[in-house]
Amino acid sequence: MFARPSGIVTLTTDFGLADPYVGIMKGALLRASNKAQIVDLSHGVPAQQVASGAFVLWSAIGRFPDGTVHVGVVDPGVGTSRRVLGAAAHGQYWLAPDNGLLGAVIASDPMAEVRELDLEHLRVRREANTFDGRDVFAPVAAYLATGRYGFTALGARVDDASADDPVFAGPDRVVHVDHYGNLVTNVPADRGRDAVVKIGDRDVAMQTTYGDVAEGELLAYVGSFGLLEIAAREGSAAAELGIGLDAPIVCTNP
Amino acid sequence: MFARPSGIVTLTTDFGLADPYVGIMKGALLRASNKAQIVDLSHGVPAQQVASGAFVLWSAIGRFPDGTVHVGVVDPGVGTSRRVLGAAAHGQYWLAPDNGLLGAVIASDPMAEVRELDLEHLRVRREANTFDGRDVFAPVAAYLATGRYGFTALGARVDDASADDPVFAGPDRVVHVDHYGNLVTNVPADRGRDAVVKIGDRDVAMQTTYGDVAEGELLAYVGSFGLLEIAAREGSAAAELGIGLDAPIVCTNP
Amino acid sequence: MFARPSGIVTLTTDFGLADPYVGIMKGALLRASNKAQIVDLSHGVPAQQVASGAFVLWSAIGRFPDGTVHVGVVDPGVGTSRRVLGAAAHGQYWLAPDNGLLGAVIASDPMAEVRELDLEHLRVRREANTFDGRDVFAPVAAYLATGRYGFTALGARVDDASADDPVFAGPDRVVHVDHYGNLVTNVPADRGRDAVVKIGDRDVAMQTTYGDVAEGELLAYVGSFGLLEIAAREGSAAAELGIGLDAPIVCTNP
Repeated sequence: MFARPSGIVTLTTDFGLADPYVGIMKGALLRASNKAQIVDLSHGVPAQQVASGAFVLWSAIGRFPDGTVHVGVVDPGVGTSRRVLGAAAHGQYWLAPDNGLLGAVIASDPMAEVRELDLEHLRVRREANTFDGRDVFAPVAAYLATGRYGFTALGARVDDASADDPVFAGPDRVVHVDHYGNLVTNVPADRGRDAVVKIGDRDVAMQTTYGDVAEGELLAYVGSFGLLEIAAREGSAAAELGIGLDAPIVCTNP
Repeated sequence: MFARPSGIVTLTTDFGLADPYVGIMKGALLRASNKAQIVDLSHGVPAQQVASGAFVLWSAIGRFPDGTVHVGVVDPGVGTSRRVLGAAAHGQYWLAPDNGLLGAVIASDPMAEVRELDLEHLRVRREANTFDGRDVFAPVAAYLATGRYGFTALGARVDDASADDPVFAGPDRVVHVDHYGNLVTNVPADRGRDAVVKIGDRDVAMQTTYGDVAEGELLAYVGSFGLLEIAAREGSAAAELGIGLDAPIVCTNP
Repeated sequence: MFARPSGIVTLTTDFGLADPYVGIMKGALLRASNKAQIVDLSHGVPAQQVASGAFVLWSAIGRFPDGTVHVGVVDPGVGTSRRVLGAAAHGQYWLAPDNGLLGAVIASDPMAEVRELDLEHLRVRREANTFDGRDVFAPVAAYLATGRYGFTALGARVDDASADDPVFAGPDRVVHVDHYGNLVTNVPADRGRDAVVKIGDRDVAMQTTYGDVAEGELLAYVGSFGLLEIAAREGSAAAELGIGLDAPIVCTNP
């Protein structure tokens, strides 16, 4: 029923890359198993912004070999009694604190199964109160990725996980601003085709790709996430519009 | 005739590391083959600056095992009909859009062979118009690195690729400003030895290494790229001189 | 007597990630052995700040499989006659210039053994005066990690290495400011328990974890490094206090 583990572990955190935290987390993973293959998904989630982390984790659906283990650590509640979750969804495995970080992944798979990590059973011991990435997520990811534990051994099934979807629930809006200043919305492709998009005080027409407008001009298009995006060709829509995360959009089909 | 693939794939992009784009591209690579060994060369190429990306790709020549596959994605024309190229040069393989990104690599190897990727033959299908890194370059790099396709199977040979060299053609100038504020020029070592370098309104004398001048002082030297550089010892020449990319230099041999 | 190499090499540098330096260093490592498994510990050490690099290297103690090779390159004296060191300490291997970068690692292991790399014997040849990361550290790390050379073959034992500890010697102070604005001090856990910490003009009480104070409030706690830290819950203590690296603290046990 559950995918065979691929041996790959991806990491999504708000740790940034300046500190040794990501490296130390990888060390803990390799101490648990030096066979795991580690891929950084993103460590640039803004500090403690769970919804931004939820978007990044969602973006990995279907993008890695089946049975990949995705770890998300954006964890303002670390050290409190918040639960630690494991999920099987979309043919992959997901580990994260129970704070909504897995909301978009779980909500998009009706067959998703969620378990609460039983740390005692897994013989996982916290060394600190503030670094579950190292003490909990790294070893469990290694065990799961290399088959030392199967998914059902992680702990008891739970049906009350924080599965509120912080990305796709709620109004149409910008849910990610990328490095180019492209504004990624939570409007899926099928609602976006042929639409006119109102953002700020501007109406932006749908196009197929950047090349359809002149340099510097705004366009709306279905981007690589399968979502409606607003960009400025060879420029930054975020800077051009003075608009960022959570900005509302109105998408009108003629 | 062509080098045996090393199994290593390097990535050079303008994606930055904050977004999940690099991670997703690696996922696509691993989906095509989980045997490829992936190394980041740089994801810090300034957005859509092809010449800067061309410098970074050039800097990898001779620095990786023979038969390494280097992928470059700085691609303002993505989604247009620009071609996708594969090159065999300097005993290594190179994949990039046909926009000059491979210019310095190709121009520096008279034996370079360039092919246009035949995406249909390679069974590569674009899922979006804006992310060839994921949809085209990642799988083809994996196929090439793991020997599923040989170089000649990539597509037909072309002789009209954008082989203009955006790094070494044109006037003597700064072609890369590094993280320390060192100014890397396009003047090769043999023209730089014993020279006096004029940059901005300053004359800077050639030295062997940083230790040859006092702290904070400017020096010119042959740097690790084999090119003439200007630095300030334990300081930033870029900040000291108020000078950046493309600044002209005059190199006078006495 | 010495740990069997784990095959893992970690890298700690002040190279940043924008330039191709880290990638080129990995290329040199893979040219020496494509079996080495490379992990980035941090490339965000501030340029030429040896004490900050010493902290990062120290933070890896006990965090990677036994026999891991840790390479540190923060090297303002590159190109001068400063020595290159190899150390066996804490069951791991350490390579760095002789400038204090290994000070905290060596000082914390009374059994540490230090050797001066004999580059001629190791057949390591510098190609440039300014990039020992590529020309010296990368190949030697690969040789050591894959067992081509044992530790004692690196060179003669030395007893006069720069083993001054730039982290734990000297007054109680902030030795690392992390990405969240947490202030990490050099006060170990056993001296911190139940203390009141004076920093700037503020008295901060010890807590167990972030959840023990209200959002935005300051707390002191034993962090994941096993050191006393000052943080602001879901905020930045560095910004709140206007305080940074090397700020003095006074830790009073009641």
